[in-house]
Amino acid sequence: MSKYCFGVDLGGTTVKIGLFDTEGTVLDKWEIPTRKEDSGSKILPDIADAVLGKIAEKKIAKDDITGVGIGVPGPVDDKGVVHMAVNLGWGVININEVLGGLLQVPVKAGNDANVAALGEMWCGGGKGCSDMVLATLGTGVGGGIIVNGKMVTGATGAGGEIGHIHIEDDEPDACGCGGHGCLEQYASATGIARLANRKLAATTQDSVLRAAKERGAVSAKTVFDAVKNGDALACEIAEEFGEYLGKGLAAIACVVNPEVIVLGGGVSKAGGILCEYVAKYYKKYVFHGCRGAQFKLATLGNDAGIYGAAKLVLE
Amino acid sequence: MSKYCFGVDLGGTTVKIGLFDTEGTVLDKWEIPTRKEDSGSKILPDIADAVLGKIAEKKIAKDDITGVGIGVPGPVDDKGVVHMAVNLGWGVININEVLGGLLQVPVKAGNDANVAALGEMWCGGGKGCSDMVLATLGTGVGGGIIVNGKMVTGATGAGGEIGHIHIEDDEPDACGCGGHGCLEQYASATGIARLANRKLAATTQDSVLRAAKERGAVSAKTVFDAVKNGDALACEIAEEFGEYLGKGLAAIACVVNPEVIVLGGGVSKAGGILCEYVAKYYKKYVFHGCRGAQFKLATLGNDAGIYGAAKLVLE
Repeated sequence: MSKYCFGVDLGGTTVKIGLFDTEGTVLDKWEIPTRKEDSGSKILPDIADAVLGKIAEKKIAKDDITGVGIGVPGPVDDKGVVHMAVNLGWGVININEVLGGLLQVPVKAGNDANVAALGEMWCGGGKGCSDMVLATLGTGVGGGIIVNGKMVTGATGAGGEIGHIHIEDDEPDACGCGGHGCLEQYASATGIARLANRKLAATTQDSVLRAAKERGAVSAKTVFDAVKNGDALACEIAEEFGEYLGKGLAAIACVVNPEVIVLGGGVSKAGGILCEYVAKYYKKYVFHGCRGAQFKLATLGNDAGIYGAAKLVLE
Repeated sequence: MSKYCFGVDLGGTTVKIGLFDTEGTVLDKWEIPTRKEDSGSKILPDIADAVLGKIAEKKIAKDDITGVGIGVPGPVDDKGVVHMAVNLGWGVININEVLGGLLQVPVKAGNDANVAALGEMWCGGGKGCSDMVLATLGTGVGGGIIVNGKMVTGATGAGGEIGHIHIEDDEPDACGCGGHGCLEQYASATGIARLANRKLAATTQDSVLRAAKERGAVSAKTVFDAVKNGDALACEIAEEFGEYLGKGLAAIACVVNPEVIVLGGGVSKAGGILCEYVAKYYKKYVFHGCRGAQFKLATLGNDAGIYGAAKLVLE
């Protein structure tokens, strides 16, 4: 019976690494820089050195290690092959084989957003459930789908790309993906700021957000802070946001019928009020058989990736 | 190594039963009536008698039977519990236990639409793939989602209820589920007839469908027959249908990223032209990472249920 596993969260700037026991307790965690030079060729050797160094430092026997899981910012297929992680300078690379060869322990790679969902299911907002949706509301909207306790990767690693569900026919601006009217254009931090700026431009109604706009400081945070202070215009913006995201999550629920929907990412720092705005419209639009899904906030923050990566090798 | 399994498709009027080998060859198939009297209490004993009779007739040893799978018209949870199959007069019943007790072989129950998807993956339009979406376009729109070769049941058995994805904000009429603007209201056989009648009422444009309307004979079949004859108004209706269903399937693809999307049910008798209308709008609305999904027609027809039920016990 193995005692330990490692979870690695590979980001564009830093690599977070955690040493876990198989029950989900973090025994150690640390970071190393992501060296992207030379087409990212130093990244996996750096990670291998860091993990092997920790194994030596802690005097861990290799037989006591289940493996090393790793979340990568790009689509990863079931065999651990990354196809074009542009942020890292990578082309096509089989992480399971390359990093596994360097470490001589089993390696399992997954997409970072999907892996974070696995982490929240294991030890976070979705703990104890096996059918879960994570919506990560950050600069964009990422997602991870858990069905029967396992990550949904999909045929080409694009499972859980919920930010690009088409949700609005009348959107003049293009999304980063090239589409028009993607969920991400309304439910991300930048999307909420966009909704706010549009609303401010369309009315003359008084609001604390007007001063923020003059300072160029309209953000998801200023909007939800204003909501908490009862600002009427900010509340209208939160309703719009809640309707878009609630409607999108209702569509997702008709596909996978989750027990719990977890909201994470920077926007989720707004707290429980966020769940209220989203759940209101979710219940309006969802099929009655899926109405019982609970809304919860993510609890692992930036550590969701290392938790999920560790869980990946325990599956 | 077992040699045989049974697949049972329990419908409101008849029960279809198939005897299969474990490779997916039908060795025998037959039907018995569904006796719904006495709150449906005769249904499972009738099925048990039919299966046991066949076992005796074919002189099959019980050890050579992997089990009996059964598709049921209602939500079924992972333990085989049906909660209210109103068409059958049932309340809450654990099919796996009750039918398993009668047969003394393992029994596994699933929702009929989900089970049909498993059948199409095993031996039909989705053969050879493990990530698949089946959209069954009949009186309503049913669905089944296959992820990593397994059926997505969901937390309360409502996985794959894709007919109730909210797709249209401006719908005055209510769907059977109580919602407004569900995919089923546009993409089912009745939905297509509704789109056609609305279109005919809204214009004076000439069309062969006008004569059909006077006979009260506007249907999905008359619409697609007219499309094949180049009727301009019918083609506009097919575009509307294709846009609704393509947009809905694009949302589903952002969740589970299927390799193949199979169109089944009565409407799919229209043939390949149906896939063309749907794929056109799917490609317009879907995230680029999911654009490669192939559209195929279901091939098992009314036998999808017995195939999928048999496969259920082989999982």
